Amino acid sequence: MTSKKTLAEKTAEAIKAMIQKDHYEPGQKLPTEKELCEMLNVGRNTLREAERILQSHNIVTIRQGSGTYISEKYGVADDPFGFDMYPDHNRLTGDILEVLAFMEPEIVAIAAEKRDQHDIERMEDCLNQMAQKVDQGLSCIDEECEFYRLIADSSHNIVMERMTPLLTQGIRFFASTLQQKDFLYATRNYRQVLSGIKHQKAVDAKLTMSYHLLFLRRQYLELLQRASIDY
Amino acid sequence: MTSKKTLAEKTAEAIKAMIQKDHYEPGQKLPTEKELCEMLNVGRNTLREAERILQSHNIVTIRQGSGTYISEKYGVADDPFGFDMYPDHNRLTGDILEVLAFMEPEIVAIAAEKRDQHDIERMEDCLNQMAQKVDQGLSCIDEECEFYRLIADSSHNIVMERMTPLLTQGIRFFASTLQQKDFLYATRNYRQVLSGIKHQKAVDAKLTMSYHLLFLRRQYLELLQRASIDY
Repeated sequence: MTSKKTLAEKTAEAIKAMIQKDHYEPGQKLPTEKELCEMLNVGRNTLREAERILQSHNIVTIRQGSGTYISEKYGVADDPFGFDMYPDHNRLTGDILEVLAFMEPEIVAIAAEKRDQHDIERMEDCLNQMAQKVDQGLSCIDEECEFYRLIADSSHNIVMERMTPLLTQGIRFFASTLQQKDFLYATRNYRQVLSGIKHQKAVDAKLTMSYHLLFLRRQYLELLQRASIDY
Repeated sequence: MTSKKTLAEKTAEAIKAMIQKDHYEPGQKLPTEKELCEMLNVGRNTLREAERILQSHNIVTIRQGSGTYISEKYGVADDPFGFDMYPDHNRLTGDILEVLAFMEPEIVAIAAEKRDQHDIERMEDCLNQMAQKVDQGLSCIDEECEFYRLIADSSHNIVMERMTPLLTQGIRFFASTLQQKDFLYATRNYRQVLSGIKHQKAVDAKLTMSYHLLFLRRQYLELLQRASIDY
């Protein structure tokens, strides 16, 4: 990096250091503009620019007329791997499914060991909502991604919690090609995964998840093959 | 998000869309300031602010006096999961080692299948450099992280390539506690992993990597235990 840091960038770093040092939690309010300007010895314009930089990194949320708060995303980037910049969605989806197929079953196994009662209730609620949407013929991709997120949460592993939402984006890419019967089938598989997690049968839960993801991957490969024949 | 986007933020998004649409590659130069101002119909100050936003997201690199280039990081965030914001390094390292222990051996197996001659040469060079540093009694953590990065590269899976550098940070956290004999031992294990990858013996390469990572994890757990006894 040959370019020097602007005052606003340095101010953003100082605020970030303060957030870390004082253990601010998501949702917590930062000191007022006036207080921050005095603490950091900068003008109001510089402070505003610094807060915008922190907002663009999902560290704070600026609520106009109310103040600046620690973001619920707590610094986790929206598109951390720059997938957005990657033009070949087919290859990206295939690669994500490859990773999911070996990673997710392991997360399921850890979740079966570490989950608590609250985790189970949230996962049950999520699958009930998914089943309801399937019954109504609606897309349930949001609920499906949420189920994966809740499994990761139940593993109580910070890395998995943060990595999973990113990977389930891969399911989103080709969910539009799935049919209602695929979602019905998925819901049944997920119920069995959840049953395994609930009863701490790690091996059964893991194998069911493996089976489901390998089925998804096969479906996706067939889809690509059909597409290449069509053209 | 209740706050509106500034003109600079909108301009940054327009430039990002242009980069995607025109398939810009890392290292490629963007149009000049003058051209961009005209294309996007904005003033020079707004453009500069927009470029700074893109730079802070690792999408471009501004080289003063030379121009603005697509960043080699191509939009991959420096700290995508906000680990920086996470104060409990012990727990984070433990969680990263848990994930590495089940993920890395799978990547090794895929690499054994997909690697090409160039991949093997780069991995051999890397391990030779690592061995040289160990001989000289120097830290070889950079070479170690690079070896993991090269394995991920050899899997030719975009997700793994982007995820791995992030996880090897976890090894960095506790590398300072390792002794020279640990690095010597690691180098020997990695040579065997590489031999498996080279000769397309996926199972052998995978088991060796599993063994090594489970050994690292055990060492780390013992370290934590000793630390808790000391205090």
